Amino acid sequence: MFDYKLLAALAAVVEQAGFERAAQVLGLSQSAVSQRIKLLEARVGQPVLVRATPPTATEIGRRLLNHVQQVRLLERDLQDQVPALDEGGAPERLRIALNADSLATWWAPAVGEFCAEQRVLLDLLVEDQEVGLKRMRAGEVAGCVCAAERPLAGARSLALGAMRYRALASPAFIARHFPNGVAAQELARVPAIVFGPDDQLQHRYLAALGVAGGFAHHLCPSSEGFVRLACAGFGWGLVPELQVEQALASGALQEMLPGQPLDVPLYWHHWRNGGELMATLTRHLQRAARAWLVAPAD
Amino acid sequence: MFDYKLLAALAAVVEQAGFERAAQVLGLSQSAVSQRIKLLEARVGQPVLVRATPPTATEIGRRLLNHVQQVRLLERDLQDQVPALDEGGAPERLRIALNADSLATWWAPAVGEFCAEQRVLLDLLVEDQEVGLKRMRAGEVAGCVCAAERPLAGARSLALGAMRYRALASPAFIARHFPNGVAAQELARVPAIVFGPDDQLQHRYLAALGVAGGFAHHLCPSSEGFVRLACAGFGWGLVPELQVEQALASGALQEMLPGQPLDVPLYWHHWRNGGELMATLTRHLQRAARAWLVAPAD
Repeated sequence: MFDYKLLAALAAVVEQAGFERAAQVLGLSQSAVSQRIKLLEARVGQPVLVRATPPTATEIGRRLLNHVQQVRLLERDLQDQVPALDEGGAPERLRIALNADSLATWWAPAVGEFCAEQRVLLDLLVEDQEVGLKRMRAGEVAGCVCAAERPLAGARSLALGAMRYRALASPAFIARHFPNGVAAQELARVPAIVFGPDDQLQHRYLAALGVAGGFAHHLCPSSEGFVRLACAGFGWGLVPELQVEQALASGALQEMLPGQPLDVPLYWHHWRNGGELMATLTRHLQRAARAWLVAPAD
Repeated sequence: MFDYKLLAALAAVVEQAGFERAAQVLGLSQSAVSQRIKLLEARVGQPVLVRATPPTATEIGRRLLNHVQQVRLLERDLQDQVPALDEGGAPERLRIALNADSLATWWAPAVGEFCAEQRVLLDLLVEDQEVGLKRMRAGEVAGCVCAAERPLAGARSLALGAMRYRALASPAFIARHFPNGVAAQELARVPAIVFGPDDQLQHRYLAALGVAGGFAHHLCPSSEGFVRLACAGFGWGLVPELQVEQALASGALQEMLPGQPLDVPLYWHHWRNGGELMATLTRHLQRAARAWLVAPAD
């Protein structure tokens, strides 16, 4: 069998983003952690880590991390029956990647009860909804919420429903730029707010309206900051309906083109051999997400 | 003089995080952008870019980017008087790094009016409050809001005031773990919420209470997600007072140890030769931040 002391050292260095913190978590000296990594590399016959800041796994390192994620979940199932097997007694950690807008809206209320009941600690990684699967392929997470449907080899994907986005701006912004009402064709002439270089929502929204070409925009890589910028009149942008119920009700934000939302379907990805905990979480998510997400548009 | 076509290509590749998007922004082919970078490297006599995904600047590349940031700001001052000098007619962009909690609270309302009046577009980069200066040293931003006071060489720092954090949790979480009232010494025995590996707020809070050692925690790198996790009963955590006025008023969150806040002073860093726009923004921030931040604790 594999030497899991070595694999645990690899996982700790990547998850803690450094040798020093990995050593703290493992209760070892930093040089002991280094030695375990070197020993692992000697056995594997090639490097498992790129020594950068932070250290990252090599291709073979990723495959090992992937394996560690799955073994941890399987161990957990067994522990319920054979508790003495647990070495450190540390609480269970589940690493999950998800898009910022899910984290800013439905994720916590949907899984809060599950985590309290199962005594699970979450390590959440925020990734753009188009690229979240990368973290799973890299063996860094046990599951992932993202907009891509196609599962990785060895994994499954489950349609959760869609986030409904609405194009919003502050009343002052609308009054300043569109005193005679918002015309779809004019939207590209006023500043937008965009989450980051990978965020294509505003582009897709304009394209669907038949508006081509670029547009001026602020870049704001924070869900909460995005809403604050919109409320303060910086620009218009697509915001999850779930996040702005109050702001819409109070009139702090207004819809630019009423009745023209954009739905982004979301999928839950998890390893097929993820064990009972992941199976329970998957069943829970399938049920809970319905209360927050809408059925995907055809 | 420097060839600014080459420097603009370097800035675009780093700011757009790739050659393809840089080419789009510059209105050039991708190979033209590559050639400009190669020509720049031939002149400088060493690489200016690390060809990774995304490309990053080398040490010398950073110094060049730093210079570009300052030249852009100086150009803007001149443009007010000599508008014909502007080549592309693209709107002004200001790249600024700030901590997630500032972006989730006071930043947008404090600078909204300024940006609308000056017709400035913002590129915001979120960085932990302890490490934001890195982006400025790397020449990637023109200014930075962070917790470090000491300015870089050639830059100035201005005390803006402090963010007041309160240790909060949901009433259900408190009832479950502390049916007889919260004891400071017991705080480390229940799950906390931590923003990321660099977030030491919860550690500092416990240390100030005289509680030593580690504690179980969820990791949640999103200001809004942090509050959602707290409301859903995942754990306790330090949250900016500004962000949870409603949640405290409605009782969705409660203070763990009333009257024991943690104040984090914030500083505005900007280049000394930043031009009139940055000087105006600095004066504006100094005035506006007072409405949101508290005078730093001694």
